[in-house]
Amino acid sequence: MIVVNGEIAGTIPVLDRGLMYGDGVFRTMRVRDGKIETWQRQYNKLAADCSSLDILCPDRAALEREIAQAIAHEPDCVLKIIVSRGEGGRGYGVPSSVVPSRVVLTSPIPEYPSQYWHEGVRLHMCEIRMCHQPRLAGIKHLNRLENVLARMEWADPDIPEGLMLDVDGNVVEGTMSNIFLRRGNRLLTPDLHLCGVAGLTRDRIMEQAGELGLELEITQFPLRTLLEADEVIVCNSVVGIWPVRSIGPKSWTPGELAPALRRRMEASLV
Amino acid sequence: MIVVNGEIAGTIPVLDRGLMYGDGVFRTMRVRDGKIETWQRQYNKLAADCSSLDILCPDRAALEREIAQAIAHEPDCVLKIIVSRGEGGRGYGVPSSVVPSRVVLTSPIPEYPSQYWHEGVRLHMCEIRMCHQPRLAGIKHLNRLENVLARMEWADPDIPEGLMLDVDGNVVEGTMSNIFLRRGNRLLTPDLHLCGVAGLTRDRIMEQAGELGLELEITQFPLRTLLEADEVIVCNSVVGIWPVRSIGPKSWTPGELAPALRRRMEASLV
Repeated sequence: MIVVNGEIAGTIPVLDRGLMYGDGVFRTMRVRDGKIETWQRQYNKLAADCSSLDILCPDRAALEREIAQAIAHEPDCVLKIIVSRGEGGRGYGVPSSVVPSRVVLTSPIPEYPSQYWHEGVRLHMCEIRMCHQPRLAGIKHLNRLENVLARMEWADPDIPEGLMLDVDGNVVEGTMSNIFLRRGNRLLTPDLHLCGVAGLTRDRIMEQAGELGLELEITQFPLRTLLEADEVIVCNSVVGIWPVRSIGPKSWTPGELAPALRRRMEASLV
Repeated sequence: MIVVNGEIAGTIPVLDRGLMYGDGVFRTMRVRDGKIETWQRQYNKLAADCSSLDILCPDRAALEREIAQAIAHEPDCVLKIIVSRGEGGRGYGVPSSVVPSRVVLTSPIPEYPSQYWHEGVRLHMCEIRMCHQPRLAGIKHLNRLENVLARMEWADPDIPEGLMLDVDGNVVEGTMSNIFLRRGNRLLTPDLHLCGVAGLTRDRIMEQAGELGLELEITQFPLRTLLEADEVIVCNSVVGIWPVRSIGPKSWTPGELAPALRRRMEASLV
């Protein structure tokens, strides 16, 4: 089901700046039994991303009505919300009258093999490097060509995710996930002030580090540091947490990190 | 008039990857007396950009039919062609069945004061810096948030364009134009292998340099070099060539470069 600005519709205007320039933001989340997981926090993230691009975030109650419409017959699905700056303008200039567009759409829960959660996943090592744009870093915006090109690098159906480095060779994230490593009692995740998307599941994992006796470090680190880790995980709001089983020739045996985090996060679901 | 995949329509599917990810390319061109200026070269550029992103470029004859439909009642207009990778896919992955989407749309010729062509334009000095992504550099793709944010930096209606630098402080382009400087008998334009859009009018100007007795250099250079120029021009397929009258406190008296290039390019119109 697709709801565009409150109406059931499969299309948007061609002049929408979302199409013209990728001038908008989005969020992807999991709906379970008709409820959006961590909805309040998802909305806060959406509002923060809109604010970063100076887009007026749609009213929460209005969005909730449209979501209810979209998920009415799909209590278990993936929900995507797109907010674009709206329609029109001469070239890149934004007309003063612009009104943001809202798109709410559902899709089936992707069917991944259950061993991905227990035995871990293989990651493709992406060749494309993410560029440093501090003005856009962290934001889940609609300019996603780097991710598309990264995802086009491999076709092996047994590899669900790829690892992306930045132009300096530092680890950033997966094409659709954030990444953490554990080394001893340290939990490291890349600093995303220069590139990458700061996902909500990443936030939630960071909050649990202390509870698990892990020392959190948000920092830049090269691929070598990742390959020397005791455990590696990737995460997003749709799949939750996957342990990483291998990156190229390097392999790991999944340990306690993913299940321990899952238990804590389930207990803290908002 | 808007023609989408051969049909007169104002909308595109929400699931089009152009909206979802900015996964596509575009071109903007001038239609005069029902003819597209330098159409063959515009099509070649479109095909090259599609190829860079591994998008199958629409057949030229099919596009021409759709353009004829779009401009039938608008013999003098701006024409924009968008080609996206098409619809769908689970996340960033591209379905093997994907068929590129074609959008052809017209808009009125923007009304700029005629002195912009003769007395020159003022440029805003943009604060946002363009990031280095060699994989996307040069391509007129749909990921244009940097340009949008740059254009949002100023509201003065007497300033039609902004100058963009890259993360290293080198000159790249205008938000919607390419840039050249003349110093003595040298004609410089930024190397666009790390960022920027390699426009068609830029190509055409580069070809004329020799005829005007100018030595062309495609190179990286800092703002200082631009400010020390004898003449500066910006160009695109819609406005042609504008001399630059000022950038911040620095000002120029437009010389012979713009009119000389215009004369040569009019004589060589394909």
